Amino acid sequence: MKVSEIGEFGLIELLAEILSREGEKQPLLVGIGDDAAAWQSDGSTLLATTDTLVQGVHFNFSPECTWRELGWKALAVNLSDIGAMGGVPQYALLSLSLPKDTEVEGVIQFYHGMAEIANQFKVAIAGGNITSSPLVVITLALIGKASKGILTRGLALPGELIAVTSYLGSAAGGLRALTRHLEFEPETVTFLKKAFLQPQPRVAEGQLLVDYGVKAAIDISDGLIADLTHVCQASKVGAIIRIDQIPVHPSLRAAFKDEYLNLALTGGEDYELLFTASPEVINKVKKDAGCPITVIGEVVEGPGQVTLLDEEGKPMNWDKKGWDHFASGNY
Amino acid sequence: MKVSEIGEFGLIELLAEILSREGEKQPLLVGIGDDAAAWQSDGSTLLATTDTLVQGVHFNFSPECTWRELGWKALAVNLSDIGAMGGVPQYALLSLSLPKDTEVEGVIQFYHGMAEIANQFKVAIAGGNITSSPLVVITLALIGKASKGILTRGLALPGELIAVTSYLGSAAGGLRALTRHLEFEPETVTFLKKAFLQPQPRVAEGQLLVDYGVKAAIDISDGLIADLTHVCQASKVGAIIRIDQIPVHPSLRAAFKDEYLNLALTGGEDYELLFTASPEVINKVKKDAGCPITVIGEVVEGPGQVTLLDEEGKPMNWDKKGWDHFASGNY
Repeated sequence: MKVSEIGEFGLIELLAEILSREGEKQPLLVGIGDDAAAWQSDGSTLLATTDTLVQGVHFNFSPECTWRELGWKALAVNLSDIGAMGGVPQYALLSLSLPKDTEVEGVIQFYHGMAEIANQFKVAIAGGNITSSPLVVITLALIGKASKGILTRGLALPGELIAVTSYLGSAAGGLRALTRHLEFEPETVTFLKKAFLQPQPRVAEGQLLVDYGVKAAIDISDGLIADLTHVCQASKVGAIIRIDQIPVHPSLRAAFKDEYLNLALTGGEDYELLFTASPEVINKVKKDAGCPITVIGEVVEGPGQVTLLDEEGKPMNWDKKGWDHFASGNY
Repeated sequence: MKVSEIGEFGLIELLAEILSREGEKQPLLVGIGDDAAAWQSDGSTLLATTDTLVQGVHFNFSPECTWRELGWKALAVNLSDIGAMGGVPQYALLSLSLPKDTEVEGVIQFYHGMAEIANQFKVAIAGGNITSSPLVVITLALIGKASKGILTRGLALPGELIAVTSYLGSAAGGLRALTRHLEFEPETVTFLKKAFLQPQPRVAEGQLLVDYGVKAAIDISDGLIADLTHVCQASKVGAIIRIDQIPVHPSLRAAFKDEYLNLALTGGEDYELLFTASPEVINKVKKDAGCPITVIGEVVEGPGQVTLLDEEGKPMNWDKKGWDHFASGNY
């Protein structure tokens, strides 16, 4: 059997199963299958995550992105994972694989992009390694701390509302605009490109959620439906979302009149947070968050599935599943 | 300018320089340029390192290696870095990039190889990510702890002796035997292959060095001369080594009569430890170490260079520098 047949999540399950079989190991609070791993270390809970960007798979240079934008994004996607655990990011390790004929100037721009977002979040690039490779592959590992508590995928409760930060689908719209050379109003282009190339990891918002007692969250990297399904499966609950509640930025709606909903439901890489909480908690979060918070549905009893309701409250058929790294792209 | 012109270490220096320029960041005890990064976290010193293996650059499948051997080695090289800091490895993150048509059975064997060495060192594979890629790229990040102190490259002192664990050059001999389909006695083949494919990270020995007050160490991954030069440059000292003292296994000597010394001096991937200490300390280490410890030379005042002395004590010319990932291979 080929890995494309069992998919990314099948491979992760296999790994977890093989590792669980035997041996005495260091204890974990959260292991394989959440946004980050967590364990107790003396007085604190440590968090660690890693993400890889492969040239031709996760990014392409011009017109899609510059080296500098890539540097930003490589760290941003990891910051988002620590944010989704409610943690404080602290130390990053960079593994940079580069073709021998890469221009040094590009690498310098990459460093600057990474340093810019590292400074914004006070993260130290603590070490790493650089090696040659036929194509550019970038892996960052990010280590952080949870001071008060952590958010996980597995603690959503029936009766809670489901909310998300900011807008969905904008990053996928940006990618599509770049790759298809679509022409829009200049401010629309700027907004969509920025959503795709310079995602703002919701680190402060993740910490706010912990402060207000939220327990369940995930970052939306694979697409709303895919990531909400991850929460449902980990929490052994169902979810109902109303498509007319999904927050879509006016620029995305204007640019992709027929497809903005598809992009918002299945377009990955928004790096917004999805979380579940009571109405009272969500109202408190709304007041203090630095970005819009929108309720899009609720957690229900039932199998780990997402049900979509249309504008009239009727269940919709939806066969697209979001992003699996071994499936074909779905937008 | 291309990255092949400034090389791996030039790129690392550029990164360190750009990152040092601005911004308030998390404090580090040891940053870019040692075997692992180190920082203080509440009661303990944490260590973190990462290493990448790229298909066609660091490994090739059959006849060179199997998936299972690759799983072992991917974690072993990181364990060696934590060992070279004198630390206790604890948690690993795996980033696995695979072509879509990879056989699942291969990945399962990879997991088993990694789990085997993880169990041996009581390391938990805490998380990671799996993604598609045109070629196999494996990055592991490993996080550990230093309980009593750390070993760094920068604390070698003139007058100290230089010692290494076990034998050098065996891994490079193993690689050469595999790639050139060389034929030797069966036990020679077994020894050399194992040295290359199943290196034994010197984690216990690293901790022993800390216990006995050693301050300066490195793991020999790029080759003896290259890694000793790293120590000399970081410590601002010189080093003199006597080639007739370099520990070479009889099997390597028998298999490569004319080249064993070249392999021992510049062949990478031995993952043995090199350290500097007083004769008294080295004698104590010799008694308690689980492998041979051999004195190969001494630290001297002077520029960050390595001087080789031949059998008669005369300086030798040596223009091979060891392994730089952007230079052409040198064996």
